[in-house]
Formats: sequence, structure tokens, C-alpha cells
Amino acid sequence: MITIDDVRAAQERIEGFVRRTPLMEVTLAQRSPLPDGASLLLKLESLQVTGSFKARGAINQLLSLPKEIVARGIVTASGGNHGIAVARAAHVAGVAATIFLPENAAPAKLEKLTAWGATTHLVGRFWDEAHAAATAFAQDSGLPYFHPFASPAIVAGQGTVALEILEQAPDIDLFLIAIGGGGLIAGMSTVLRALHPNARIIGIEPVGSPTLYASLEQGSVAKLDSVTTSVPTMACAQTDPGIFDIVRKNVDDIILLDDAAMFDAARWLWFEFGLAADASGAAAAAALLSGQISVAPGTRICALVCGAGLDAFS
Amino acid sequence: MITIDDVRAAQERIEGFVRRTPLMEVTLAQRSPLPDGASLLLKLESLQVTGSFKARGAINQLLSLPKEIVARGIVTASGGNHGIAVARAAHVAGVAATIFLPENAAPAKLEKLTAWGATTHLVGRFWDEAHAAATAFAQDSGLPYFHPFASPAIVAGQGTVALEILEQAPDIDLFLIAIGGGGLIAGMSTVLRALHPNARIIGIEPVGSPTLYASLEQGSVAKLDSVTTSVPTMACAQTDPGIFDIVRKNVDDIILLDDAAMFDAARWLWFEFGLAADASGAAAAAALLSGQISVAPGTRICALVCGAGLDAFS
Repeated sequence: MITIDDVRAAQERIEGFVRRTPLMEVTLAQRSPLPDGASLLLKLESLQVTGSFKARGAINQLLSLPKEIVARGIVTASGGNHGIAVARAAHVAGVAATIFLPENAAPAKLEKLTAWGATTHLVGRFWDEAHAAATAFAQDSGLPYFHPFASPAIVAGQGTVALEILEQAPDIDLFLIAIGGGGLIAGMSTVLRALHPNARIIGIEPVGSPTLYASLEQGSVAKLDSVTTSVPTMACAQTDPGIFDIVRKNVDDIILLDDAAMFDAARWLWFEFGLAADASGAAAAAALLSGQISVAPGTRICALVCGAGLDAFS
Repeated sequence: MITIDDVRAAQERIEGFVRRTPLMEVTLAQRSPLPDGASLLLKLESLQVTGSFKARGAINQLLSLPKEIVARGIVTASGGNHGIAVARAAHVAGVAATIFLPENAAPAKLEKLTAWGATTHLVGRFWDEAHAAATAFAQDSGLPYFHPFASPAIVAGQGTVALEILEQAPDIDLFLIAIGGGGLIAGMSTVLRALHPNARIIGIEPVGSPTLYASLEQGSVAKLDSVTTSVPTMACAQTDPGIFDIVRKNVDDIILLDDAAMFDAARWLWFEFGLAADASGAAAAAALLSGQISVAPGTRICALVCGAGLDAFS
């Protein structure tokens, strides 16, 4: 699907369009999930423009397309961070964005989409239904559709997070990365396997949306019968075959967490660090707090805080 | 009251007890308050342990006192960030903390105090009444009282923020610092005048609590007849003479903002950077957004995000 060169090209392409976010060493947590001598660094993509790493993929996708292709506007389906990132990419390019969202989309997300100048349509109960409407709209109108994860340019854009982390701290042993559709872990693991091959890479999925876990179990892309997680940014019934291939090759392990563990971790991030993360943004920390990951003393761990949100207070 | 040497000693003393917080360059804000070529750096003390810079002063005060003085416990009056910082300092030292709060203290703050193991007492309508009860309690019990700002060790501790910023970015032209009692700006300006004398230093007070503004106007410590701001961390009827002397000598200007401007800036920090700040944490950004500060092109500005909170959502 992509190689390290695609991610390097993406990094060059999107420079000046995204922020270099801090990598903060965690010290002094009252309730520490670490054994003696281990250390934890939080990559604060929650401070990224638009509030999540999704800004990277969206702007890379936009800048990868010829100007005439995007001139009449761009389309996506997302009730969450990807939608906001696409709306903002369109704003940067001065083109129109049309965003389809499920009817239960959060009012706060709609507000952000409006602030970035997007046109919004509420369609269907789930992302899949909004996605169907959006792809039909894109086909009818001839506008490009920005898929949230099944696009090499999106995956390469998300991979730039890993390049940036390696510049900030080249000596990390273990990476903890939340999975929705899998675009982020596919992009990041491509970088890590190329530049830092011995790092351990663990993905995190909700018990109620074990998309890649189930696919790895059966050895091919699985389609979940039901998605029961309440975390919208991690809800995905089916990944993409290209993503699956990368994850199968690169990722050491996927652990499953219930939603409550992620909400609890969001409260932990708030109490310990004043960080307002969404549940997916807290998933990596939740994995550590869950005790499901064995960590040797001295291990240096990077947990991605991939998105801002108020899930500590819900 | 203090010199740069006191702040240097504080920095050495508190190392390992507070976090080095990120200084993040602001790029890509949709609604930028800056003229072309100016740049803005946010010092994220909202990520500090306990959620604000107050952790610095509190732990410096504690470590400055002989062990036998604090062994039976410590006392303060604060419904806000200083109270939490003192509770956490006591937790670190393994001693008891007794915190007096006004009756209208936020439940979330009480929860944090409890999480740090403090005993709490709700007394009076305002800080001054809780303070009176706390000092009486301290006198009766013989326990040390940790004043929120009128203590050299507290001021020196807060001053370490400036030392850290100068290490991270030695070339800042303008510092924007919120004022409650004045401990933070007194400590920071002591450092800046010693090491970076040409920097412009601007303090920010609420229109409804112009403690130092009024004192500078009349040339001596003023006592406000009424304090009408709704921002508890910036409400203060009277500063300390030592603080006043430092501010008079070091600070270039104090600007006054209404509460709405600070709440609006908290929303700005959330929309643009996914930062959850309290109103005082947003005050420095609010000063910039207000247009009250003239900024030449090329100016490098540091705005302190001094505390975490949910004022963007209130």
C-alpha cells in the first residue's frame, strides 16, 4: 500500500500545514502504570490543528491531488475527527467541503465543521450509511471522496506522526497506538519497521469493535456482524485489505479494551496531566493502565494521545 | 522580597518534583491574533502536575521548611489551584494537608483535593473568610500556613517558570502573564529583569479585580472595595507589599479584561489547540485577542497557559 518513502514525501508535503506536537515525558503521576525504571512519553496529537492526527492525512491527501481535481470541492463521510480534518484541509485550499455525518453526530463536532466553513448533511444511523450517501454524492457530482483510512495518501500522512516521534526520541521500545479503521497504525508501523525495526508495536481496539483483531484471527479481512462500542472514532466493521496486510506484517499484538477502560483512562489523563482527550485519545494510556501489557523495567514507552475531547467528563 | 538567586535555588530544589512543561509554537490558528511575522509560544503549565504552575511554589515552600516544621501537617486556604498544589506537596512529603475553601468551591476541585488525600473544610463565602479560618486554625494547631502568594518561597517557586522558558526559547520579546495575587508575575519578572532585561512584561487582571492596577495607580498597596470577577483564580482584594514592590519595578504594563474575554479565549484555545484551560489560563491569550496590546511585526510573544480547566464549556 505504502512505503517509508511515501511517508517521507508526505512529511515534506505537509510541512507548514500541520503542527509539530510535543512529546511529553510523563513524570510524577500519582497513579503510575509503570514498573520501576520504565518511562512513558505522551505524543500529544490532541494539540494538533483540528484536535487530532487526522489533520495530517487529510492535508496530505489534498496536496497529493492535482489542483483541478479538488477545485470544485471535496467530500467525506465522518462524524468525527477525520471530517473536521477534511473540512480544514478544504479551508486551507480555499475549496468547498461537503461532510456527511450520521444523524447522532455530536453537536460540538457539527459546530467545528461549520467553523471551518463546511457544508454538512446528516444521513443515516451509522458511519456506513453516511458513507454510502457520501460516495453516491461524490459519484453524482464528480467530486473526490476522501476515505478516512483506505487511501495510501491518508495512511502516509498519518505515518508522519512516527517520523516526528523518532526525531524527538529515537530510543523508544514500545509504541501503543489506537485503531479505528487502522490508517494510523498502518502508517506509523510502516515507518517504525523501516527505521526502528526492533520496536514493539501494539494496537488497541475496543472489545465492541475488534476489526483488525478478528481479521488477524481469521487470516483475512473480517466483517464484523455488529459494532457495539460507544466510542465513535474506534467503531469500524471492516478494514481495508491494504491496511490489513500492513498490520499483519508489522504489528506485534492487538489488545482489546472495554469502553469503560478508555473512559477511565481519559479521567486519568485529565487528573494527572490536565489533558482533555477523547476516548480513542485515551486508548493507548488505557492499554497501559489495564495491566494487559507486560513491561520490563527500563522500557521506554510512547503512548499516542491521538485526539482531544471531553470523554473524561461524560 | 526575592532575587534571581532565590529562583535558581528553587529550581534546583524542586527538580524531580515538578514537570518541565512544553513550550509550543502556535502555528496555523484559524483566527490568529498576530500581525504578519509575529510569533506566539504557549507555555503549557496546564500540563503541570496538579494542573497549574502552583505546584512549583507549593513544593518549593515545603522543601524550604525544616522537616520537623511540616511533620505534623500543613495548612492553606484556597478553593483553587494553590490548594490542590499544597495538597499534592503534602502527599509527596507524606504529611497531612488541611485545606480551607469557601463554601462555593467547585465540586471538581474538592474531588481533586480528596484524591491527593487532603482534609477539607468549607468556610465562608469568599477566599478571605476561608483564609481567616485557616490562619486561626494554623495558629491554634501550630501548623505552618502556606500563603498563596505572600511568601518568598512561593514566589521563587513560581519564578522557575521563567527560567524554564528562557532555557526553551531565549529570544522572546514579550511575556503575557495573568495576575491573581501577583505571585507568578513577581517571580517571573524577577528572573526576566535579571537575565533578559529588555523583554516587555505585561500583566493581565480582570476588570472586576484590578488589584495591582489600582495599587500602581495610587502608588501603594490598594485594597479593593469589591471584587466582582467571576474568575476565582484571579479574584484578590489586596496584594502583598513585597509583591507590589516587585511589580512596580519590573512590569511594563497591566491591562484589564472583562471576564467574557477570558471565557472567549478559553474557547479559542479549545478550538484551535484542543487545550482545556481555566479562565485565568486563558487570560494571556485573551489579552492578545483583545487587540489592547500593540505588537510589532517580528515580535516573539510568550503567553502563559497557567492552568487547566473547563471554562471553554461553561
